[in-house]
Amino acid sequence: MKLMFFLLAIMQPMLAFGKAKPETSCVLYSPDGNLRAEFMLTGDGTPEYSLRYGHSDVIRPSLLGFKLRGSVSASEIIYGKNIVKRDPRPIRDFSSGFRLASVVRDSLDEVWKPVWGEESQIRNNYRELLVNLIRPSTGELMSIRFRLYDDGLGFRYEFPDNQPLTYFVIKDEITHFNLTGDHKAWWIPGDYDTQEYEYVESRLSEIPKLFKKAVCGNMSQTPFSNHGVQTSLLMKTDDGLYLNIHEAALKDYSCMHLLVDVKRHSLTTDLTPDAQGWKGYMQTPCKTPWRTIQVTDSAVKMLASRLILNLNDPCQYKDVSWIHPVKYMGVWWEMISNAGTWAYTSDFHSVKLGITDYSNAKPNGHHSANNANVRKYIDFAAANGFDALLVEGWDIGWEDWAGCSKDDVFDFVTPYPDFDIAALNDYAHSKGIRLIMHHETSSSVRNYERHMEDAYDLMDKYGYDAVKSGYVGDIIPRGEHHYGQWMVNHYLYGVTEAAKHHIMVDAHEAVRPTGLCRTYPNLIGNESARGTEYQAFGGTSPKHVTILPFTRLNGGPMDFTPGIFEMDLSKFADNKSKVEATIANQLALYVTMYSPLQMAADLPEHYQQHMDAFQFIKDVALDWSESHYLCAEPGDYVVVARKAKKTGQWFVGGVTDEHRRSFNLKMNFLEKGKVYEASIYKDAPDADYRTNPQAYLISKQKLSSSDSLEIVAAPGGGFAISFKEL
Amino acid sequence: MKLMFFLLAIMQPMLAFGKAKPETSCVLYSPDGNLRAEFMLTGDGTPEYSLRYGHSDVIRPSLLGFKLRGSVSASEIIYGKNIVKRDPRPIRDFSSGFRLASVVRDSLDEVWKPVWGEESQIRNNYRELLVNLIRPSTGELMSIRFRLYDDGLGFRYEFPDNQPLTYFVIKDEITHFNLTGDHKAWWIPGDYDTQEYEYVESRLSEIPKLFKKAVCGNMSQTPFSNHGVQTSLLMKTDDGLYLNIHEAALKDYSCMHLLVDVKRHSLTTDLTPDAQGWKGYMQTPCKTPWRTIQVTDSAVKMLASRLILNLNDPCQYKDVSWIHPVKYMGVWWEMISNAGTWAYTSDFHSVKLGITDYSNAKPNGHHSANNANVRKYIDFAAANGFDALLVEGWDIGWEDWAGCSKDDVFDFVTPYPDFDIAALNDYAHSKGIRLIMHHETSSSVRNYERHMEDAYDLMDKYGYDAVKSGYVGDIIPRGEHHYGQWMVNHYLYGVTEAAKHHIMVDAHEAVRPTGLCRTYPNLIGNESARGTEYQAFGGTSPKHVTILPFTRLNGGPMDFTPGIFEMDLSKFADNKSKVEATIANQLALYVTMYSPLQMAADLPEHYQQHMDAFQFIKDVALDWSESHYLCAEPGDYVVVARKAKKTGQWFVGGVTDEHRRSFNLKMNFLEKGKVYEASIYKDAPDADYRTNPQAYLISKQKLSSSDSLEIVAAPGGGFAISFKEL
Repeated sequence: MKLMFFLLAIMQPMLAFGKAKPETSCVLYSPDGNLRAEFMLTGDGTPEYSLRYGHSDVIRPSLLGFKLRGSVSASEIIYGKNIVKRDPRPIRDFSSGFRLASVVRDSLDEVWKPVWGEESQIRNNYRELLVNLIRPSTGELMSIRFRLYDDGLGFRYEFPDNQPLTYFVIKDEITHFNLTGDHKAWWIPGDYDTQEYEYVESRLSEIPKLFKKAVCGNMSQTPFSNHGVQTSLLMKTDDGLYLNIHEAALKDYSCMHLLVDVKRHSLTTDLTPDAQGWKGYMQTPCKTPWRTIQVTDSAVKMLASRLILNLNDPCQYKDVSWIHPVKYMGVWWEMISNAGTWAYTSDFHSVKLGITDYSNAKPNGHHSANNANVRKYIDFAAANGFDALLVEGWDIGWEDWAGCSKDDVFDFVTPYPDFDIAALNDYAHSKGIRLIMHHETSSSVRNYERHMEDAYDLMDKYGYDAVKSGYVGDIIPRGEHHYGQWMVNHYLYGVTEAAKHHIMVDAHEAVRPTGLCRTYPNLIGNESARGTEYQAFGGTSPKHVTILPFTRLNGGPMDFTPGIFEMDLSKFADNKSKVEATIANQLALYVTMYSPLQMAADLPEHYQQHMDAFQFIKDVALDWSESHYLCAEPGDYVVVARKAKKTGQWFVGGVTDEHRRSFNLKMNFLEKGKVYEASIYKDAPDADYRTNPQAYLISKQKLSSSDSLEIVAAPGGGFAISFKEL
Repeated sequence: MKLMFFLLAIMQPMLAFGKAKPETSCVLYSPDGNLRAEFMLTGDGTPEYSLRYGHSDVIRPSLLGFKLRGSVSASEIIYGKNIVKRDPRPIRDFSSGFRLASVVRDSLDEVWKPVWGEESQIRNNYRELLVNLIRPSTGELMSIRFRLYDDGLGFRYEFPDNQPLTYFVIKDEITHFNLTGDHKAWWIPGDYDTQEYEYVESRLSEIPKLFKKAVCGNMSQTPFSNHGVQTSLLMKTDDGLYLNIHEAALKDYSCMHLLVDVKRHSLTTDLTPDAQGWKGYMQTPCKTPWRTIQVTDSAVKMLASRLILNLNDPCQYKDVSWIHPVKYMGVWWEMISNAGTWAYTSDFHSVKLGITDYSNAKPNGHHSANNANVRKYIDFAAANGFDALLVEGWDIGWEDWAGCSKDDVFDFVTPYPDFDIAALNDYAHSKGIRLIMHHETSSSVRNYERHMEDAYDLMDKYGYDAVKSGYVGDIIPRGEHHYGQWMVNHYLYGVTEAAKHHIMVDAHEAVRPTGLCRTYPNLIGNESARGTEYQAFGGTSPKHVTILPFTRLNGGPMDFTPGIFEMDLSKFADNKSKVEATIANQLALYVTMYSPLQMAADLPEHYQQHMDAFQFIKDVALDWSESHYLCAEPGDYVVVARKAKKTGQWFVGGVTDEHRRSFNLKMNFLEKGKVYEASIYKDAPDADYRTNPQAYLISKQKLSSSDSLEIVAAPGGGFAISFKEL
């Protein structure tokens, strides 16, 4: 069948030769026929594509292609004594002069099971068009593969083997997204080093003028243009269509940002540069990540789209028995709030690992990761059914680590004098929980890789099976960016090396995920967006959590670390920050912010003041067989119902922005013929994230699938419901 | 004693306060009183130094100091939503505004024993002056330590702990060498990535105009200025004084080049930049390498100077029993000459390690590192008393490795299908020799470090105890240079990691040595200059080997790989190159080019044609109890006599440039009262490197310490003598 298509495709240009026009257009329809993608070659051989949804254009004809570095190799050896010519690094066009060599069509309709996820199975149903191009002037080959789903398009460039192009360097990728209007967008500033910004909701045309205000401070940031934004970029047309541009399977390539052309309502790719300004070093056969455009006619359908995961390769590991969801607490929030310190002592002006002698240093009295405090957390976490306890500030070096571009900054193996790594792990295990390791790299990446094997061996030795890694500060090797090809390679290296040790990874400050967790399911989390810690750094507006599921979570789960019960940090720390959420909102996040790794981030004493509310966190599942987004609007509210994979138990969570909202939720996701007791955790009538964030009500109610539930969320509030089958 | 000096030094400024001038000058004399160094602070607190030899100025008052980056840390976390200020990276002066806080004097006169060397013991005799400076405006501290020897001056900057300067970034080091005239110099072009140039002999003022012609092609090169030269820089004044500028103990710092100011006869330091143009990232307490100026009144005294080693720290290893000299041959020259290949097959357009399947590839028929050929070399090397055999091209990836900026280029552990690593090592061991490992990194340094532990483990497993590493091509991380701080750190990392495995290292294309082999004696060699391989790349003029001992060997031994007997490569390879030397010259190099690691580089069959000459190579020792440079002139000739440490046997070697030279050598280095039989290997009367390079004579003669020996070296020739006590 494929062969016939292939032959027909080959013959078409020949058949057309006698006519006026050669073949320049290939059309692809989604399985349900609603989406239509078209590939075109213009008269001068410039590849373009477009996308229609029903009768509406979504993407007008838009360019594809590259700018490459002209001269590939370094200087040549010249026998004798000739003078070498300096390589002038010309740029050459790789976006025109193509001919269509052949077309191959394919399709797939399968169901696959993720190791963990929002569903126990996911349908992967697409129609595929592979256009094989040739540049007659050079014989170079490039292919573009299009996969069209009912919920969107993915396409990627592929460079086959056995052709003149072997090694090549990308100056720019020229992929355009010519939109049809000045859409509303939810965006964060384009930045080669951080994603920790609040989202801005505005028209595309307003981006340049709102850009500066959107950039707040960070330990490492490179906002490269006031027309730049990051992906996943969510948009809504005036016709009510939701669009989402992102990438899938970012591997061996540089992370994509987008530059807005305000006049033309157009977006172009801007890849993260390396230290010299080049965007990618490639060797054929190779492929780029998928560029993705999800298109849905409702917000909940956007949240239900699994296009990013579907475009990724299947799980690469034969044995995944060691990978599991993790519900954890942490010796962490007390340092983030400034109630305690990561550092052990104030004796040292600066630290040199291996030379600075901690054994006689005077403890500063605030070091949170000390034996007694860790045991206290272990006791609480174990007593309340948690799987694990993260401990930050366990290893030497924290006195002097950030903002110094320090190479030899941590060794990942030497504990502080007051952290008995053997005894504490024994104690945790005796209580039925594990500790979670912490590898803050301070972005000194060569240093981390030098120590990585020893660091993972140490984890094996003491029974750690998960690590939170961090990349705070500018990257070393200096000149590289957090999201360049170099670091994309490193993050995956950390994950695959961890897999050899049966270790799961939660990488903070890393590149935002693009669905690689399907292939490498031990990547159980990333931060890679503005997380709960910012509530301690001045606060984050409530709408943030109503946007993240559309954007940041599109490519993979986020270690959002919710569950804060004490909103006024000044009550327990030298910190004027207020958490801009209610308790009910914090509970809801365990459902609305899907993640196999969930933290109850607050201090035990704050939970002890509200053990009734805490019960929801104890009960909530982390791994799901079904998820139903009941209603949602980006920037406003998200409500979702999920069924636990292990127990079959249902949970619902809903969050709102700064507005009070009433919801009328149909319970028709529940199994017919069954009666459930719902435990409803909601905002009290007078709750408000600004003035009364801790006011909540817990009630019980019998519900069945034919019922509706009326529920009101306070400003910055939400609700969380657990169901027990009766 | 030291305390008294300290107190006096502290008091001096106070005592002087009442007078018109504060203390601005400290003088230091060498042990024999002939050299005089002076440290000065000018009126505005600018530090300077000068050097006199007897009654002659050598260095006129010359600047000391730095330019530092103004703002140290990365962007700050700004709680809340303020906009971050971009760090504008100002540069601030750190070369004036100093006051002398205190002065400490010291001296040392010791004898130490190197693990291997030109002598079994070395005298380390100096007077030291430590000036402790403070910048009153900021409280910052900097010290300069001067050590004055009878044969030269070394000084370094030190930055103490417990002061405002903690982390700082160097924009430029401002160390000047204001010379007293337009001296004659032997120089190679300044270059951040290669030293593989022929030396040019010229006046300093001629450097800019001769620069372009001096730069020949290389796989990686960055000639940064036509006023730039490398160190060791040898000069000769018109008064007959020899000067040599270099550095000692280059560690955690960037390699120093020199920029020539032609008008002022002045040199200034130019450190190798990182990818962003910064020269060094420092954390106090720290120190720079020693800047060294050797001063002797004869060429042979310059060659006898051990100042560089003396300035280095003592051996760091407790156990050195595993470190030993190595006389080796190699499956190497046949590939360098183009008679064979490193690569195994021609099947692959490009290689992806782990994907490219070599098991069914068709051998190209020229792969030199195949089982049969290696056994042949093993047989010959073992039969002739060699310690080891280097084999290059044993590991997969050579089909496609250079000039592509390829990251995942070699894995250092997977042999080609025709290299049975287990069997070949067994065979070598059964014959009493070892194989030498080869790690060509292709300058993909992260890749090398990722594999290093496995690579060294593999060596342990198969009984390798030495590795030749290589860094051909531009460095990856891209933007870094071979001689920047980043790579200086890496080279030492490779050496210290090797030491954990009791492995010795011979690093090619690495930074030129600066005496670190005293501290890390498993660093038994570097290339880091234009070696014998260039004889196969078009030839190298005969004077090269009469300069290298003064320059390249000043900081440590060179794996020069001499011993070529077949000078006309076209006889056995597709190569028109001619080796610009006679056989007698090649024999002499084993004595004149000191190294604990010596290669008989040619093919066994070429030695088999001249086994009588080859006898010298078999006999020559590698480790010495005494060395006497009998006569030498840079660019002209070098003659040296050495006594073997193990056997007490004497050897003499002499080389000349393109001129025929007659020598009258006094044998007074021999022990009095003893009679020796000298086996003299010399050029035949009609020998000439251009026309008759293989013509040599071997004669025997009885000699004693009261004798003189007349001997003539042909153009490009030399002589080698082994002595047997009767």
